[in-house]
Amino acid sequence: MNQNKDTIVKPSILSGFLELLPEDQIIFNNMLDTIRSTFESYGFIPIDTPVIEKAEVLLAKSGGETEKQVYRFTKGDNDLALRFDLTVPLARFVAQHYGVLTFPFRRYHIGKVYRGERPQKGRFREFYQCDIDIVGDEKLSVINDAEIVSVIHSTFKKLGLDEFTIMINNRKLLNGFFMHYGIKDNVEVLRIIDKLDKIGADNVRKELVASGISENVADEILEFTNLCGDPDDVISALRQIDIDNDDFVSGLEELETVWSYIKAFGLDSSEIEINLKIARGLDYYTGTVYETILNHHKELGSVCSGGRYDNLASNYTKKKLPGVGISIGLSRLFYQLREANVISVSGVKTTTKVLFVPLGDTSAYAIKTANYIRRKGVNTEVYLNDGKLAKKLNYANKLGIPYVAIIGEDEVKKNTVCIKDMNSGEQSVYTIDELTEFVKNIM
Amino acid sequence: MNQNKDTIVKPSILSGFLELLPEDQIIFNNMLDTIRSTFESYGFIPIDTPVIEKAEVLLAKSGGETEKQVYRFTKGDNDLALRFDLTVPLARFVAQHYGVLTFPFRRYHIGKVYRGERPQKGRFREFYQCDIDIVGDEKLSVINDAEIVSVIHSTFKKLGLDEFTIMINNRKLLNGFFMHYGIKDNVEVLRIIDKLDKIGADNVRKELVASGISENVADEILEFTNLCGDPDDVISALRQIDIDNDDFVSGLEELETVWSYIKAFGLDSSEIEINLKIARGLDYYTGTVYETILNHHKELGSVCSGGRYDNLASNYTKKKLPGVGISIGLSRLFYQLREANVISVSGVKTTTKVLFVPLGDTSAYAIKTANYIRRKGVNTEVYLNDGKLAKKLNYANKLGIPYVAIIGEDEVKKNTVCIKDMNSGEQSVYTIDELTEFVKNIM
Repeated sequence: MNQNKDTIVKPSILSGFLELLPEDQIIFNNMLDTIRSTFESYGFIPIDTPVIEKAEVLLAKSGGETEKQVYRFTKGDNDLALRFDLTVPLARFVAQHYGVLTFPFRRYHIGKVYRGERPQKGRFREFYQCDIDIVGDEKLSVINDAEIVSVIHSTFKKLGLDEFTIMINNRKLLNGFFMHYGIKDNVEVLRIIDKLDKIGADNVRKELVASGISENVADEILEFTNLCGDPDDVISALRQIDIDNDDFVSGLEELETVWSYIKAFGLDSSEIEINLKIARGLDYYTGTVYETILNHHKELGSVCSGGRYDNLASNYTKKKLPGVGISIGLSRLFYQLREANVISVSGVKTTTKVLFVPLGDTSAYAIKTANYIRRKGVNTEVYLNDGKLAKKLNYANKLGIPYVAIIGEDEVKKNTVCIKDMNSGEQSVYTIDELTEFVKNIM
Repeated sequence: MNQNKDTIVKPSILSGFLELLPEDQIIFNNMLDTIRSTFESYGFIPIDTPVIEKAEVLLAKSGGETEKQVYRFTKGDNDLALRFDLTVPLARFVAQHYGVLTFPFRRYHIGKVYRGERPQKGRFREFYQCDIDIVGDEKLSVINDAEIVSVIHSTFKKLGLDEFTIMINNRKLLNGFFMHYGIKDNVEVLRIIDKLDKIGADNVRKELVASGISENVADEILEFTNLCGDPDDVISALRQIDIDNDDFVSGLEELETVWSYIKAFGLDSSEIEINLKIARGLDYYTGTVYETILNHHKELGSVCSGGRYDNLASNYTKKKLPGVGISIGLSRLFYQLREANVISVSGVKTTTKVLFVPLGDTSAYAIKTANYIRRKGVNTEVYLNDGKLAKKLNYANKLGIPYVAIIGEDEVKKNTVCIKDMNSGEQSVYTIDELTEFVKNIM
């Protein structure tokens, strides 16, 4: 490179990458904070793995689409890859540090992941994932699967996304059902079933038959996967089905246990449903699976998904490490909610609550008084540059700072502060002692 | 890849990458939080730029060492690079979004950066930087340079790193001094001066003379750069020096102004000194420069550095955008402080405050009661897996959870909770109403 100093390079970022302006960034960060504090409130422990890993380790299992999307490159002798999710790094982490971790290991991880997908609206090549997983050593009670639902519920409530449905299913139940009907290629059937919302029942039926399934069985499958709604009702209906396949029986039992503990967590069918169409990935999950939709924005698809797996780290260790977890793809969710105006910006482009504006030679007094308020926990800024009052007030207005403390020579003389409420336009004069009261009121 | 499923890949990360175990991660995250909240308390605004940028944009100016260290690669038609600092992305950001930003633009950015340095103890190829910068449009008052010192001061105090010295200098002063003595190659002189601590004054003198400087001038330089200490004293001494070079005069004037405002921020010479040896990079800074050392760990070198620059984004725009800022390399600082036992781990491996341990068939009651406490803001966990009481208490002990609520059938019957203080071993029984009091006490 070493370009000529006078050359101007057009400032731009790569397509498919998200960069927010402060107004949006502040909202985004608040969402990250909310998710993190909710995860911690349930006792999840933070980890933070390198973004760059050995390609050999990161891609130990993957293939197909994932591998094509991975950012992989060499530096020196090293074959490197950027992480494409937080689950593979978790598996590596747990296997690597097995001896010093305490199990069940409840971890959360919030970080950026990378996928070189074809750019399209609302899909990003760099995006935040917010994951929780509970990993057991050898075994892990299915009650944990119920707790995960409670965490999803709390998280979305705290995010202010009030109207949502958490849909659960159990992969064993599906597998058992298909086995009962002699279907060997579950994966193909699940792939077709997955299109129900897109192409409708008639077309799905046609595709099932085309794949070699008899018309009768296709009807049974459609009827079965159509079961959906209040968990008590779905469980009742499932109990009526006369299938004695082991997977089916134990899947139903798990689903019943999970649902009974979901109720212990204080949740009910107003926000939880069993939906037998939910399958989530095709060879990864082995028990409970989750998807979450926003009731008024079903077009966004699942905004929080996950499930139970028998063996997290089989690529890295012979230890059996079963687990259950979920992931929120926050960058995409944020982008979509902004586009749909579910999240709207407020004109606030800073976390500053009070701007001190010194007029004339009052900077030292303004700085001292600002320090005083700042120490009481209020984000406080001093306008330290030249300019007329109007320009300084305009700065506060543009950033959406709610209070401006105007400091003139009079204030210095009387040891007071004149604070203007930028919303109401009202001005009040405070002595230094009275500032404590002001601080209390705005906190 | 697509390796055989039975193949076990040894789980490991690349050399030169830092990965913390939960005990350390929690401390590290607390430090990040402290830095962030301190930055916000001064009105700095968050940004978060992509880790991957166009190589052409990111490397518009750089060359030499930096370029060799950059992680650069292609994907499809794109020539990509990972950011190696947060300053170049800031320059690109400000130039790209100039029209919609409010100036002075006070931004903070906390994120990972990448440098493929030769691995060595305490140097990482992926590390966190925590940056603040104040960027003006056309001009920026030198009072901002004083505010930066106040932010450094507050940050290190809040981090609990109490004994430190913030050293300031001014590049104009150095340039003016060298020009006065007819030295053209400032850069070479600064490079030699930089070795003072390492090789001593005698050797520096020899190198200066070897570089073509007369013995007399070498002595003058050594005497000059030896000025260091209480800013009032150094400024007095500088006033005695009879040099009328413009840069020297205006550098001294700036230094005096900055010092007078540092005092307005409530700081004094107990933690601030002027040190004429500080130069910081060789062609980047144009005015005030900063370094910060921990008094009892000078061997760590500067833990927070930065300075003033005339023109942040000259590679991306013709607008003149002067600024001032600093950076804390937190990964390295954390590692060094841990090694030096300034930060010591506490045995706490979770943020959980209370673990509920259900005995027998009491999970539902335990879950309900845990929910109650969690909603009051206490990080609360329920042990949802099988096992004997000793195993469950051991889990709490290993993670350093301070309180365990043991729930037996008696508790369910009486609607109470028995809470064991894991430090004192004391047990207390609370009714549900009394739990509010317990929560207050532990918050």
